[in-house]
Amino acid sequence: MPLARIDLVEGKSVEYRQTIANVVYDKMIEQLGVPADRFQVITEHKIENFLYDPDYLGIYRSENCIFIQLDFLDVASPEQKAGFYKAVVDELHEKLHLRREDVFFNLFTVTPADWSMGNGVATYNNGVPTDRLDPNSV
Amino acid sequence: MPLARIDLVEGKSVEYRQTIANVVYDKMIEQLGVPADRFQVITEHKIENFLYDPDYLGIYRSENCIFIQLDFLDVASPEQKAGFYKAVVDELHEKLHLRREDVFFNLFTVTPADWSMGNGVATYNNGVPTDRLDPNSV
Amino acid sequence: MPLARIDLVEGKSVEYRQTIANVVYDKMIEQLGVPADRFQVITEHKIENFLYDPDYLGIYRSENCIFIQLDFLDVASPEQKAGFYKAVVDELHEKLHLRREDVFFNLFTVTPADWSMGNGVATYNNGVPTDRLDPNSV
Repeated sequence: MPLARIDLVEGKSVEYRQTIANVVYDKMIEQLGVPADRFQVITEHKIENFLYDPDYLGIYRSENCIFIQLDFLDVASPEQKAGFYKAVVDELHEKLHLRREDVFFNLFTVTPADWSMGNGVATYNNGVPTDRLDPNSV
Repeated sequence: MPLARIDLVEGKSVEYRQTIANVVYDKMIEQLGVPADRFQVITEHKIENFLYDPDYLGIYRSENCIFIQLDFLDVASPEQKAGFYKAVVDELHEKLHLRREDVFFNLFTVTPADWSMGNGVATYNNGVPTDRLDPNSV
Repeated sequence: MPLARIDLVEGKSVEYRQTIANVVYDKMIEQLGVPADRFQVITEHKIENFLYDPDYLGIYRSENCIFIQLDFLDVASPEQKAGFYKAVVDELHEKLHLRREDVFFNLFTVTPADWSMGNGVATYNNGVPTDRLDPNSV
């Protein structure tokens, strides 16, 4: 169910962009306890339309900065969210040499009634407790 | 007040895209009990930047998949939301032969103070109970 | 921490777009009590993909309409939000002659655990009360 929006500056290769999406997907499942489904939108921006803070909190960001926004059910603890941030950043650093300073995240959560994954049906609006949502049970 | 973001792959006609927007608008008013106002953004993506799960929950999706994200006041019940999903999907299937499997929804809700529809005024921040919001009273 | 999405029709100059972003940033800090950091995405749309209501609530909008969506921590009162709307609209009118009717806002808020501003660390997940968040304390 998560929907990810990934924003970055234009000019990166398809492979680079897909690697980012793959890492967000893999780590989301591994760290956040969400079902293994994939819905992601990548948007490439002209540099003048993509504005990142160069040094907020003493963290120095470059134009390779990426924004990752993820919308999902409220199934993850603060500790799981923190684990997700670290796992994504470590993997992007390893695979793409993306600087750890250059990854910005914003998560938000909605209720089970707020999703339909197809066929016009409210996917999670069936009495299944949301704490039972995992790749095996759904 | 709802703000809709509609994401799909590039290559569809203007008429096709506008029909999707029209159906989302019509059914939102009919099913969700929101005021009859229209604020919608359609974003077309290169196929490599638009990632949909091909078979999550045994629902087989094609590259005609569309994502509909709607932000509005918390005025709709789970039943109304379910009615909205079904009504949109049925109408898109009838008008555009869009496969029912290919429509993904994600709703989210915010508070009355979170909207300004123009003139720099907090539109709903005037003591009107949100359950009174309908096309006639606002 | 706020993340802003600014949507408008294509065809405006870089300077025009940057002025909008600058005003949103300046007034956000001045009015909403958020830290002074800047993360903004501007998206330009073909006119047929950018749909605004021409007269909802008797407010007449033109194709210069802009949508401003801001995601931040729940640190602002309804009065502060109203002050933000007015301050942005007044300044855009003064600097760009943007009609006051043409500015649409939608805010939403998330929790401290939902942010990482870099280095894979949950920026606000450290026991600092969110009411202590200001440009000096963070």
